[in-house]
Amino acid sequence: MAGSTKDIDALIELMARLPGLGPRSARRAVLHLIRKRALLLTPLADLMGQVAATARECLNCGNVGTSDICDICTDERRATGELCVVEDVADLWAMERSGVFKGRYHVLGGTLSALDGVGPEELRIPRLADRVTAESISEVILALNATIDGQTTAHYIADQLGGRVRLTSLAQGVPIGGELDYLDDGTISAAMRARKDL
Amino acid sequence: MAGSTKDIDALIELMARLPGLGPRSARRAVLHLIRKRALLLTPLADLMGQVAATARECLNCGNVGTSDICDICTDERRATGELCVVEDVADLWAMERSGVFKGRYHVLGGTLSALDGVGPEELRIPRLADRVTAESISEVILALNATIDGQTTAHYIADQLGGRVRLTSLAQGVPIGGELDYLDDGTISAAMRARKDL
Ligand SMILES: [Zn+2]
Ligand SMILES: [Zn+2]
Repeated sequence: MAGSTKDIDALIELMARLPGLGPRSARRAVLHLIRKRALLLTPLADLMGQVAATARECLNCGNVGTSDICDICTDERRATGELCVVEDVADLWAMERSGVFKGRYHVLGGTLSALDGVGPEELRIPRLADRVTAESISEVILALNATIDGQTTAHYIADQLGGRVRLTSLAQGVPIGGELDYLDDGTISAAMRARKDL
Repeated sequence: MAGSTKDIDALIELMARLPGLGPRSARRAVLHLIRKRALLLTPLADLMGQVAATARECLNCGNVGTSDICDICTDERRATGELCVVEDVADLWAMERSGVFKGRYHVLGGTLSALDGVGPEELRIPRLADRVTAESISEVILALNATIDGQTTAHYIADQLGGRVRLTSLAQGVPIGGELDYLDDGTISAAMRARKDL
């Protein structure tokens, strides 16, 4: 782009690839970063380098952390026999913010989708059955989004695990077509407390 | 935040301070960055470090670049005798994208504002008069936003420079209350071509 320099242009171009930022907001963000060099740009560069070097998916549950097995999976107090299945890490974080769930998670990494060619092997579904046995799980809570793909995925998992474990899903409070990460913490708490058997 | 780690939390917190990103979009952006580690997170960390180390304001015009005097100010082909005054660097970039202006710029760094206590000394206004003489400027184009503060600033500058130089402002095409950086390139071109004497 005329008027700036190669590095600044490249930075704008990369920032524009972030979800929620387009070219215009990326330009604004980069100017803001340059103005707040010591407070924002330098710390952000350092932290991004740090996270790039250390962040990884938990081999057990798919949560994002800085070790092979995440803090939730290594915390013995969370071995409650309850396993909460979510679509992605943002949903796990939303659930944790609500503070209502004390067990462990299983992050699928998406939903089944015939249209997008996503089958059970593309998700973390085979591992779910293994965990039910290995971790003596008594209840699997399917906290999937109330979308068609989310519900298709819930039914598929219910078929796979049927009879081996108590299966529940989030109940009232999750609006039709709603996504967990958009809901306030109170709504999530209410839905979790009122969960029903499938 | 429960469920993630210290570095990731800190990264989310810093990202949420960028204009256009709130806490929720910052969380989404950070998960996206972690998923696209090689393509996005590592290059972004490197570029931010690079820009933090090299970016600076041009001592002459206030543009952002990587040298004390920016590429536009050092380019002799841009010594056309025309000087375009803008509020901030985003406006300079918008003007450059339109490709209509071949002279040099003067970035004020804001507008006069009695309410916010911004006087001429807080902006790059005193230096503007010096440049008119030093760079044999024949025309100063006041490309300020069509806001009350923008127009107040234009009148103040016109008073300061009155009689020494031809003063023009962007004319038709700039909507009332509109900001340059929101306009499409064609609108800016049209307004520049139809500029009128003050
Ligand atoms: Zn884990
Ligand atoms: Zn310059």
